[in-house]
Amino acid sequence: MSKLDIERLKAIVGPNNVKHDPADLYVYGSDSSVHRAAPDAVVRPGETSEVQALLRYANENLIPIIPRGSGSGMCGQVVPIHGGIVLDMKRMNRILEINLADVYCRVEPGVIDDDLNKALKPHGVFYPATPASSRIATIGGEIANNASGVRSVKYGATRESVLAMKVVLANGDLITLGARTRVEATGYQLERLFVGSEGTLGVIVEATLSFVPIPTFRAMGMVLFDSLDDAGDAIGAVMGKGVALSMLELVDSVAIKAVNNAMDLGLPDVEAILLIEADGMVKEAVDHELEAARVLCEKHGGTLTQLSYDPKERAKIFLGRKKLFPALSMYSDSMVSTALADDMAVPYSKMAETASKIHEIAERNGVVMTAYGHCGSGCMHTKILMDTSKKKSWEGARQAVKEIYEYVHSVGGTTSAEHGIGLSKASAFKREKADSIPIMKAVKAAFDPNNILNPGKLFDAPDDWVTATDLRYVASK
Amino acid sequence: MSKLDIERLKAIVGPNNVKHDPADLYVYGSDSSVHRAAPDAVVRPGETSEVQALLRYANENLIPIIPRGSGSGMCGQVVPIHGGIVLDMKRMNRILEINLADVYCRVEPGVIDDDLNKALKPHGVFYPATPASSRIATIGGEIANNASGVRSVKYGATRESVLAMKVVLANGDLITLGARTRVEATGYQLERLFVGSEGTLGVIVEATLSFVPIPTFRAMGMVLFDSLDDAGDAIGAVMGKGVALSMLELVDSVAIKAVNNAMDLGLPDVEAILLIEADGMVKEAVDHELEAARVLCEKHGGTLTQLSYDPKERAKIFLGRKKLFPALSMYSDSMVSTALADDMAVPYSKMAETASKIHEIAERNGVVMTAYGHCGSGCMHTKILMDTSKKKSWEGARQAVKEIYEYVHSVGGTTSAEHGIGLSKASAFKREKADSIPIMKAVKAAFDPNNILNPGKLFDAPDDWVTATDLRYVASK
Repeated sequence: MSKLDIERLKAIVGPNNVKHDPADLYVYGSDSSVHRAAPDAVVRPGETSEVQALLRYANENLIPIIPRGSGSGMCGQVVPIHGGIVLDMKRMNRILEINLADVYCRVEPGVIDDDLNKALKPHGVFYPATPASSRIATIGGEIANNASGVRSVKYGATRESVLAMKVVLANGDLITLGARTRVEATGYQLERLFVGSEGTLGVIVEATLSFVPIPTFRAMGMVLFDSLDDAGDAIGAVMGKGVALSMLELVDSVAIKAVNNAMDLGLPDVEAILLIEADGMVKEAVDHELEAARVLCEKHGGTLTQLSYDPKERAKIFLGRKKLFPALSMYSDSMVSTALADDMAVPYSKMAETASKIHEIAERNGVVMTAYGHCGSGCMHTKILMDTSKKKSWEGARQAVKEIYEYVHSVGGTTSAEHGIGLSKASAFKREKADSIPIMKAVKAAFDPNNILNPGKLFDAPDDWVTATDLRYVASK
Repeated sequence: MSKLDIERLKAIVGPNNVKHDPADLYVYGSDSSVHRAAPDAVVRPGETSEVQALLRYANENLIPIIPRGSGSGMCGQVVPIHGGIVLDMKRMNRILEINLADVYCRVEPGVIDDDLNKALKPHGVFYPATPASSRIATIGGEIANNASGVRSVKYGATRESVLAMKVVLANGDLITLGARTRVEATGYQLERLFVGSEGTLGVIVEATLSFVPIPTFRAMGMVLFDSLDDAGDAIGAVMGKGVALSMLELVDSVAIKAVNNAMDLGLPDVEAILLIEADGMVKEAVDHELEAARVLCEKHGGTLTQLSYDPKERAKIFLGRKKLFPALSMYSDSMVSTALADDMAVPYSKMAETASKIHEIAERNGVVMTAYGHCGSGCMHTKILMDTSKKKSWEGARQAVKEIYEYVHSVGGTTSAEHGIGLSKASAFKREKADSIPIMKAVKAAFDPNNILNPGKLFDAPDDWVTATDLRYVASK
């Protein structure tokens, strides 16, 4: 890497959009993961032509470029472990077009998910591939990570909603991928390859997204279980029978306790809760799916409670799940909630076993772990609660992560459901995808021969995910 | 290319599975397109290990390999214009697993689409990304072309149903792509890149597909229009309002006449027919969508007729659409129905204009063209009816194809909706995707550095699609 020419960067994006004082570099050195490493500069482009000029400069001078949205990623995707320029895309936040007749919208990558949905709402439609972090997450970041959320069981992940995009390649070329139509069979579907590529193939400067009608009716209920295994069996039964829910969330006993301790929300003190929701244009259809789910859940020992069509009641039911993430941070004064082994996907029939296994592995390794997630799409989330000042905790966490992904792979699951790989999950990713990593590297080299785009991530990330945590926590050295 | 070692091929797959007599080579020299070019040998592998051995041999000796299903492609995808070995995958036709609890099935690439659905039916589920050619089309061919069909408006194309696959790379390596779960964010989604890659990146030897419940209720009706423009406006209105149909088919007056002439099916003699269908688990929901469609169609001058839930009645309504393809071949004794400009996708709001434009361009160039297709997914189909013995017809067809795709691109449409590119559409494809073709070529080189996999297709196809037609029709030389 050549020495960074700050004046050159200022000439491209204007002096106010280049930051390189220590405070800024510190802030841009972390995301929502345990990792930290400062960039050499932060640049905030406002136009595609600026992105092109920046990439040309970086490519000529072999300077790493790390495209970044809001930094809400949990695996260190935007932590610049090889330094270079963080490309903060949040200034490019215009909604360029909402085309109702042709059922698509065009947005810049810095648009916040909630802002897009606010703009779509008056037209009676919504963008469904929304993660829990939609208040801050950008569309660009969501595409880069193939994000999804509570409604992916019905509406799919980001990959199912992206029709086309414009990207700037490492050499500064601007290209258009995909098409604006529902179906397309026009050569390599490179827009699909970009979904989940974590900023390693190019910089997304525009996305064309589909949207769907806001359902007229939506009802939610809570199903209580005295056994986690029973809840897992119920998930398998509901999904195996093709019950069309719009949400199927698992909350385990650790999570229930965490929420009740922290916020006194009065969640029922049971071993597991399933939140079920259905939506549609016709009440009879919503009733039909929820009734089918109720029958199958009861068959497996569940009790349906608090079923409601009322938006306020629904919000109340969902509040416990929504507050889970902050509640885990408040679990114990001596424990920090870390995004480690934070997500995975497993076949429906292995959901209960996976949750039990997570508890067992946590206990054996001296950390506290919870199991929750969007079970209707096979997605399981965890957090590791640990005393980050203790070497023993880090060693336990490291061993627990290793054991969890070995288990997930052994039952036909995959390393990430919707949070991506970044640094934290690289080791598990490399084990799972060992046979296709040579071709992934060849594809990466085809797009980015000088390896300037988000280097050191995915297949190129260090095996030991603790390496980049030193600045944030006391590491296990 | 080295001289083909037939004995070596026989040693790999057994003597009965290597064909190289002129009759076989003739048969394997064509598909459902206008193109023709004979291979040097046809090899029928029965196991993945045989595919690996064949690719290793071909890669060492720089021999083209053309993976082939049933040859129902319409654009010359499997026509071996550079000779080499056609890999007939139809022997690998086992359904390996139907996993109801985890909502996926695993199949070999030679499984016929209808056979898969026959196997799924007793379990109350179906594979929805089915093209009209499902009686003969293989799953491998459907994936290679991102096939879709009448129900793509609701259920999406092949790309929405493929979860994972095993592929053999050009060097003989066997790799696994994707995951068996509904969501996945584990690095590059190479399985999505393989969908639509037309045999140029590797040979699919296994696919993991999702399926959906067979709906309990399904109703279909016919909406008659005195004006093609009105029918187009109705399509735009129905899709723009988010009416959730499971089918929305356009049949234009040329097609109506063709069907009535050939088969006396008594289709109403109007300017345009829309076939509308909705399905679901609850009758009220199906009624709701069809009523919404009726209101919008009537607003645009349409008249709903023959609405029925009865399977026999529905089959009768659909028969005209179903028989369109053979009917076009019987349109006139002096005219042949050719798959040229055979499909495209355009934004909903341009559907009517596109159909009118097709008629206008056809007339101006002395050929007959019809417009029909799965309008609910933006997909428009045509056939060119012409006297293939006349040079003038070929010249007219060539000019018409050129003008049609220029128009499609000008309104934001794309070159192929679901038939792929192959040879016939390469010229339009190269124009549409000019800015991304360099990177597509780099990706191709990453997968297949010796260019043995289906060479001379997509970006490498000759610009003049007539070049490979000489053996089948009198060409325009």
